[in-house]
Amino acid sequence: MHKGEIIDKLRQMRSEDQSYTDGRILSSVSTKPLNVAIKAYEIFSDTNALDVHVFRSVEKLERGIIEWFGKLLKNRKTAGYITTGGTEANIVALFVAKKTYPKKREILVPESAHYSIQRAADLLDLRIKYVPLDRDFRVDVSEIENRINKDTLAIVATAGTSALGVVDPIEEINELCENIFFHVDAAFGGFVIPFLDSKLRLDFSIENMDSITIDPHKMGLAPIPSGAILFRNESYLDRLKTSPTYLPFQTFTLSGSRSGGAIAATWATINYLGMDGYRRVVKRCMENTRFLCRELKKIDVNILVEPELNVVGIRPKNLERVWALLREKGWNILMDTHSKSLRIVVMPHVTEKVIGEFVRDLREIV
Amino acid sequence: MHKGEIIDKLRQMRSEDQSYTDGRILSSVSTKPLNVAIKAYEIFSDTNALDVHVFRSVEKLERGIIEWFGKLLKNRKTAGYITTGGTEANIVALFVAKKTYPKKREILVPESAHYSIQRAADLLDLRIKYVPLDRDFRVDVSEIENRINKDTLAIVATAGTSALGVVDPIEEINELCENIFFHVDAAFGGFVIPFLDSKLRLDFSIENMDSITIDPHKMGLAPIPSGAILFRNESYLDRLKTSPTYLPFQTFTLSGSRSGGAIAATWATINYLGMDGYRRVVKRCMENTRFLCRELKKIDVNILVEPELNVVGIRPKNLERVWALLREKGWNILMDTHSKSLRIVVMPHVTEKVIGEFVRDLREIV
Repeated sequence: MHKGEIIDKLRQMRSEDQSYTDGRILSSVSTKPLNVAIKAYEIFSDTNALDVHVFRSVEKLERGIIEWFGKLLKNRKTAGYITTGGTEANIVALFVAKKTYPKKREILVPESAHYSIQRAADLLDLRIKYVPLDRDFRVDVSEIENRINKDTLAIVATAGTSALGVVDPIEEINELCENIFFHVDAAFGGFVIPFLDSKLRLDFSIENMDSITIDPHKMGLAPIPSGAILFRNESYLDRLKTSPTYLPFQTFTLSGSRSGGAIAATWATINYLGMDGYRRVVKRCMENTRFLCRELKKIDVNILVEPELNVVGIRPKNLERVWALLREKGWNILMDTHSKSLRIVVMPHVTEKVIGEFVRDLREIV
Repeated sequence: MHKGEIIDKLRQMRSEDQSYTDGRILSSVSTKPLNVAIKAYEIFSDTNALDVHVFRSVEKLERGIIEWFGKLLKNRKTAGYITTGGTEANIVALFVAKKTYPKKREILVPESAHYSIQRAADLLDLRIKYVPLDRDFRVDVSEIENRINKDTLAIVATAGTSALGVVDPIEEINELCENIFFHVDAAFGGFVIPFLDSKLRLDFSIENMDSITIDPHKMGLAPIPSGAILFRNESYLDRLKTSPTYLPFQTFTLSGSRSGGAIAATWATINYLGMDGYRRVVKRCMENTRFLCRELKKIDVNILVEPELNVVGIRPKNLERVWALLREKGWNILMDTHSKSLRIVVMPHVTEKVIGEFVRDLREIV
């Protein structure tokens, strides 16, 4: 095909999808990337983060991102790397956990955890013991305590569950993790919690926390693919180091070739927004979340839990019928079958105007 | 930081690296992506291949790529997906292998295999038995045969080894694989072998071959991240299917969120070049490979094996010294410590002119 033909065809196909800017995508954890990020990707589109001997610039950019995370997580020694997303990050965390306690095989995981934890356990031949939730949909810490035994390798907590944006009681779990690997999956909440005016804590001052997953491509507003796995210090990465015979250095990443473009785009995003920028983004999203909740309370839908992050789960009567009717009206909204709820992720593209239209349509339906 | 400042800084940093177009990158398996691919990425930069309920276009593009691979591999039923690269593809292949033969734990792997196979085995708790090479650096099939036992889960072959571009004797290995999973890592060779005028065969007409890794971001000339894992048919993917509670469909990919931009860029690349385009690219690379070999034969360096693909491994006397001096002259060339050789990957940016300059410099050194 000719170049022009290819571009026309792609533009045409893309235009037939929904777009974030039309505002009807309600359950997405991504949003439209910044122009500066797209431009950054373009400048680095031919680079490979694996080939540090060729592309030293990419190594510098990645180091810059990890240092930035170090500030966010109040620990200058923070080590880690930019993954393709939260799944790779969760796999890497549990891989390191297994190398830390090679004789143990069991992990304790909240029932609300992301499915990638199950995937990671399946890959790594770890046994999952699921832990039930309390009535606020947080993992029940006393139930964790009941399940700990000498085979307990790791405990996983979530900071921002997929269905409801709930944050597990991280500080209480921390108390139980002296000789157990403690991983926090903050793929969604990692770019929210540090910028909230709340008592929620999510950083390496939580002394037994070993690793944390934070996705720049979710609330970090960077383009996909950009996840991050962050460890307390460099020694964790040493457990994954390998020496490919054809490379003049050791490598520890799970992926081999990695897009320097994605790293540059992430670097551009965090530097464009900065800590203050993220604080503003989070403030606006939380204001919209509270606005949404106020509007929802005027109609007969059940809000499952008072949101701490910018995710709202509702359980109207005739859940499946309401879901189908909303989709008929063009709302792209997801239902979680475990918590039996519809989820609204109040990303920056879910504006006050969008919320108003959504609640109006929902009121007509219920 | 301001947008302009960020772009200036990134341009500055990028300009301090080597670039493919300056021609001195000799050991890279990637090259400069096509403009049409960069443009395609941009159009789809805000899409997520996981969210098929939002971005149906990306699903269509990916299906188009897999169908194209079906033609390449002479099997309309070919199934698979676009991974972040060869490592993910190799992990997924062995993950499926393990699910196919859940009671077996041992895999037979050539000593020359890519390090990602070792990584995958480590993740999946599989035991590797390494198989030595014959004097042409191909895996020794009789040595594979000696090692097969009732615990043999899978045999791995490489079509284009990292160090020397050697192709293992796939058709002979095929004979041994009736009740053993057979995976071919053709991350490099997958976009070369089908376009060669040679008797090498690499497709699903090899009847016991279960899966094949082919990286579009290597000789497919697509931008990173773009790998592919391809199976004989859909039933293999079924073994990986999972049902996230918050998604209205099953998913089988190892990554969660995936860049629709990368998929669009890959689609653009294969449609721009087409089968004929790849044939031309491969023809030129092979001509340059033969030119390089002719020139090298005029000087005192040992070519380890007559190349079948566009990779040349040389072992000059005083290997490490020669390597250091080449690097001093600005040649970005890698040494493989296992085969004790310097590798030249004759990608499209390694032109006749570059080869001439390289051989001139090498002659001065040896």
